[in-house]
Amino acid sequence: MGESELLGSLPARLYALCSLILVLKMMALGTYTGTLRMRRNVYTSPEDYRFQGQTPSGRGDPDIERARRAHRNDLENILPFLAVGPLYVLSGPTEAGAWICFVGFTTARILHTLFYLREAMPHRTLAYAGGFAILLWMVVSTGWALLR
Amino acid sequence: MGESELLGSLPARLYALCSLILVLKMMALGTYTGTLRMRRNVYTSPEDYRFQGQTPSGRGDPDIERARRAHRNDLENILPFLAVGPLYVLSGPTEAGAWICFVGFTTARILHTLFYLREAMPHRTLAYAGGFAILLWMVVSTGWALLR
Amino acid sequence: MGESELLGSLPARLYALCSLILVLKMMALGTYTGTLRMRRNVYTSPEDYRFQGQTPSGRGDPDIERARRAHRNDLENILPFLAVGPLYVLSGPTEAGAWICFVGFTTARILHTLFYLREAMPHRTLAYAGGFAILLWMVVSTGWALLR
Repeated sequence: MGESELLGSLPARLYALCSLILVLKMMALGTYTGTLRMRRNVYTSPEDYRFQGQTPSGRGDPDIERARRAHRNDLENILPFLAVGPLYVLSGPTEAGAWICFVGFTTARILHTLFYLREAMPHRTLAYAGGFAILLWMVVSTGWALLR
Repeated sequence: MGESELLGSLPARLYALCSLILVLKMMALGTYTGTLRMRRNVYTSPEDYRFQGQTPSGRGDPDIERARRAHRNDLENILPFLAVGPLYVLSGPTEAGAWICFVGFTTARILHTLFYLREAMPHRTLAYAGGFAILLWMVVSTGWALLR
Repeated sequence: MGESELLGSLPARLYALCSLILVLKMMALGTYTGTLRMRRNVYTSPEDYRFQGQTPSGRGDPDIERARRAHRNDLENILPFLAVGPLYVLSGPTEAGAWICFVGFTTARILHTLFYLREAMPHRTLAYAGGFAILLWMVVSTGWALLR
């Protein structure tokens, strides 16, 4: 199957592009957490302290825990989106619908991470709700197209 | 690629439908957790308390933690299923096989969540084992079809 | 869509095979955690202790926590790989490129788990970095193919 076939439609190309951006965003968040750990010398495994020639401090770090919560929220929301996206594309959405869903969800999730790390409330909750509503719409409209 | 092509077969349509149901189930669980947090005033981030004009209580809530464990178990089991499903469909299963796998896994995972939240043991473990066995079968039979 | 069509190319078959191996690896890790829990009588839910006729010990177990951290790292890295893989295949990689990416990532993540459980540092970090670099390359080269 050539690229021309599956990625030929606008919705399919938008899905592919937004998926790549969202995965990059998650990788950036993981790297941010790792960088914080090294800078603040706060690890989770005793062997990490041993390797650094340090004794485990036993303390946590609120910023590292916050980044981890943002990352877990990504797992709960972005990963289902990555699975629903291709089904939504195959359900034959309009170009405008695909644009709103894919670009809207991606924007909402990037904002969610930024707001989470900056402790911006209620902005974080609003970004979460936006992504949630779009994903819900994608699920419902794909189900409708499947069952009609 | 039209809907008629990829979602034309029964296994493909079943996969799509079960995926949507499972994603809805995960979204419902996330919403349940959020609702519990608001009702019981138990949050994870200091900024959430600040936004509500409250001081962080520092205490957890056993029901919220239980819902979060159920959700994490979903991440560990449903998300791999969503990735294996299309490969299983492409491996050319019988209609009966696809029906058992997709409907069986979906039922097992819905029951798993319900049993988890109701603290029903050993029912929860049985539902987990059922979903696990079906996913294992899907992986093995797809691998067999790939390599034969 | 027949198997011959979508899984006909070498990159597609390699992706399918590596995905199945990685999902099996994650399932093995989950089973390992469950086995440790039973052997050491350390559970997370009060109802699990009740079912076993025991009183909750309240203590954790460092090896169980380590296995859970390895599993969470899988969720953060393997699951995005499973979503990016098909897009990478559709971007039309060379056979050599697909071989290096798919087999390399799979090897890196199997080693990551083994090193994590054996507390092998810095081996674990190197395996993580290898998988991360390959996934980053897949995202960038797929994006390049999409936008060129």
